[in-house]
Amino acid sequence: MKIVIAPDSFKESLTALEVAQAIETGFAKIFPNARYIKVPMADGGEGTVQSLVDASGGTLQKITVIAPLANPVCATFGLSGDCKTAIIEMAAASGLHLVPNAQRNPLKTTSYGTGELIKAALDLGVSEIILGIGGSATNDGGVGMLQALGAKFHNKQGRDIGFGGAQLLDIEQIDLSGLDPRLHQVNIDVACDVDNPLCGERGAAAVFAPQKGATPQMVSLLDQALAHFAERVKTLLGKDIQTPAGAGAAGGMGGGVLLLPNAQLKAGVEIVLNATRLAEHLQDADLVITGEGRMDAQTIHGKTPIGVAKLAKQFNKPVIAIVGCLQEDYEVVYPQGIDAVFPIIRQLDNLDNTLKHARENLISTAQNVARVWKLAK
Amino acid sequence: MKIVIAPDSFKESLTALEVAQAIETGFAKIFPNARYIKVPMADGGEGTVQSLVDASGGTLQKITVIAPLANPVCATFGLSGDCKTAIIEMAAASGLHLVPNAQRNPLKTTSYGTGELIKAALDLGVSEIILGIGGSATNDGGVGMLQALGAKFHNKQGRDIGFGGAQLLDIEQIDLSGLDPRLHQVNIDVACDVDNPLCGERGAAAVFAPQKGATPQMVSLLDQALAHFAERVKTLLGKDIQTPAGAGAAGGMGGGVLLLPNAQLKAGVEIVLNATRLAEHLQDADLVITGEGRMDAQTIHGKTPIGVAKLAKQFNKPVIAIVGCLQEDYEVVYPQGIDAVFPIIRQLDNLDNTLKHARENLISTAQNVARVWKLAK
Repeated sequence: MKIVIAPDSFKESLTALEVAQAIETGFAKIFPNARYIKVPMADGGEGTVQSLVDASGGTLQKITVIAPLANPVCATFGLSGDCKTAIIEMAAASGLHLVPNAQRNPLKTTSYGTGELIKAALDLGVSEIILGIGGSATNDGGVGMLQALGAKFHNKQGRDIGFGGAQLLDIEQIDLSGLDPRLHQVNIDVACDVDNPLCGERGAAAVFAPQKGATPQMVSLLDQALAHFAERVKTLLGKDIQTPAGAGAAGGMGGGVLLLPNAQLKAGVEIVLNATRLAEHLQDADLVITGEGRMDAQTIHGKTPIGVAKLAKQFNKPVIAIVGCLQEDYEVVYPQGIDAVFPIIRQLDNLDNTLKHARENLISTAQNVARVWKLAK
Repeated sequence: MKIVIAPDSFKESLTALEVAQAIETGFAKIFPNARYIKVPMADGGEGTVQSLVDASGGTLQKITVIAPLANPVCATFGLSGDCKTAIIEMAAASGLHLVPNAQRNPLKTTSYGTGELIKAALDLGVSEIILGIGGSATNDGGVGMLQALGAKFHNKQGRDIGFGGAQLLDIEQIDLSGLDPRLHQVNIDVACDVDNPLCGERGAAAVFAPQKGATPQMVSLLDQALAHFAERVKTLLGKDIQTPAGAGAAGGMGGGVLLLPNAQLKAGVEIVLNATRLAEHLQDADLVITGEGRMDAQTIHGKTPIGVAKLAKQFNKPVIAIVGCLQEDYEVVYPQGIDAVFPIIRQLDNLDNTLKHARENLISTAQNVARVWKLAK
C-alpha cells in the first residue's frame, strides 16, 4: 500500500513536514509495511519556504537586505535540494512585521529588499524562482523591487525617484535596460491568491493599504500614484499592469513583477503542487492524506487541501483530511474532492496546551483513521 | 448493511437515545439504505432508567416515597414497553442529592424509599426488577428498604428499630416472614460495579460514608453497626452478607438486597446488555457503533463501550466508538475490543457551548466515519 501524505502546516504549532511525520507515525502503527510518501505542502503564503525546502531536502539561505523603511534586515529564503529553485517570501524582506506599528506608512515603505532577495537567488545560479507575495508592508507597485534589480525610474528632472508609494507620482521616464540580464534565464512564478486590479475601488491602495497604516487621505494619494505608474508603463512600455487579476496584490507588487521578463502570477497552491511534483507521487497512490490547521468554508478558495484533493481526484484517489480544527461551514469541501475530514482535538483545554498537544493528537487521529481503513477493507 | 448503534448517554448533554439518533443521522447521509438498530445503553448508573425505557419503548412512573430523612419526595422509575421489567435507580428515592449539604448524616438516613419503589414495581405486576444502587445518601445496610417491603428488625425490647445507619446497632431479632410475598415471583438484578465487602477497612462505612457526610467518629460507629447487622443475619438466618463482593455498595445496600428471595448483584453493564437483548441484535450486524461522553483508562472498568465491544467481539464484529472527549490514557480500550475511537470536538470553545454543539458534532463525526468506511470498502 502506498500512502501519500501532503498536508499544509498547522500554523503556530507544526510545520508541514512535522504534520506529515505525525500522520505517518499514526498510520504506521496500523500499517507498518505501507510505503509513505511525505510531501510537505503550502499555499504560497506563510510557511511556503519551509515546506518546499523540506519537500526537496533543500537549505535556508540568509542575506542582509533593505527593510521597508530602508534599515538593514537579515532575511531568509529557500534553495531547493537540487539548487535549481529559489523560494522567496516577500515578507522576509518587505513584511509588515518588520515595521513597528507607529512607523507603518505605505507612502514611504519600499519593496527594494525583495528585489535584493531575487538578485541573491540569481547569484546562486537558479533557473526557477518561486515568489510568495503575502504580508507586505508596501504599496509601491513593486517599484522598489524593480530598482534593486536595475530598473530606473526618473522624475521630470531626470533623477531617480526615492523609496515609497508616494514617489510613484513623480515617475516620468522608465528605463528597464539596466535590469539584471540573468532575469532572462530564469522563470519566476509569483504566488498570488487575490484577483484585485492595480488601482481603483478594488485596487491595492483601497483594499490593502489601510491594514498597512494608511489613512483615508493616504489611500487616495497611493491610489493616484499607482494609477500614474500604470499610465506611465502603458505609455512608455505598451504594457497593461492595471487590469490583470492580481496586479493589486501586495501593494501592487503583482503588477510590478509583470515588468520582469519571465514572471507570471499563479495560484499559490498550483505553484507548490508543481514544485513538489505531487502529481507524480499521486499516480500510483492507494490513499492520500492532506490537512491544515483550520478547515472552513474559506478552504475551498485556493488552500492546500483542496489543491491536493483536486489533483488527487484527477487520478481517482481517495482523499482524507486531518485538521487542527473544523468550523461549522466546512462541508463545502466535500464536492471539491475531500472525502472525509477529522479534527484532532480530543478534549477542551486552553489554546496553548492544545497547540502543544497537536503532534500527539495528530498521531492519535491518524492511527484511528488507519484503524477504520483496515477494518472496512 | 446492518449497523447496530449502542452508546451510553453523553452526561450533561444527550441521553443515550439522542446519541444513537445523532449517530444514525450522520451515518445515514452516506448509507441511506442501511438498516440501523438503535439500542440506548447504560452501565447501571445514572441514566440507566432513561436508556432502558428508551430502548424498550417504555414509560416513566412517578410515585411519592420517603426520602433519606423521611420527608416525602416524588420519585421516578421506569417500566419497560412490555410492562414486564421495572428499572429503578436507588438515587431517585434515597439519593445524596435529596439531602441538603448541612443535613447529610448517614447515622440517620434511610433507604426506605427504595423499598417503596420496589413495592410500587410489584404493584405493577412486573416479573423483573433492575435496581441501580449508585449515588445513595445512606449507610443503613439496606435495612430501610427491607422494612418498606415488610421485614421486621426488633430491638431488645421487641420494638421496631428506627431509621438510619446508627439504628442497626440495636437489632436483636430479624423477622422476614412479613416480606411482600410477591418478591418470590420476581427476579431482582442489582447493578453493582464495586467489590467492597459490607464492613471493615474496605467496607461501606470506611470507603463511602465520608462522602455522604460522615465524620471519622461516625464512620467508626457505622462500621460497627454494619458488623453487628451482619453478625445478627449470620446467627439468625445463617446467611453471609459480609463477604460477598459488592455487599458494601451503596451504604451496604449490596448486602441488604441479599436478604430478598431472588436478588443478586451483577455488573451493571451485564444487566443492561441482557435487558436490551443486545446479543440478538449483534448476531447479523455488519458494524457496531458505541460511545460515551468521556473515554479514558477507566472505561475498561465496566463502562458501556467495553461491555458492548466485548459482546460484539464474541460475534467478531467491528466496533467503532464515538465519544465526547478522549483522554491521553485511552489506548487501553483497544485490546478490549474497541477497534477505533473518534472524539467529536471540532474546535476550542467553553464547556457550555461545546455541550450545546454535541448533537451536531456527533452527526458530523459519524458522517465522516461513514465516509471512510465507504471509501475503504
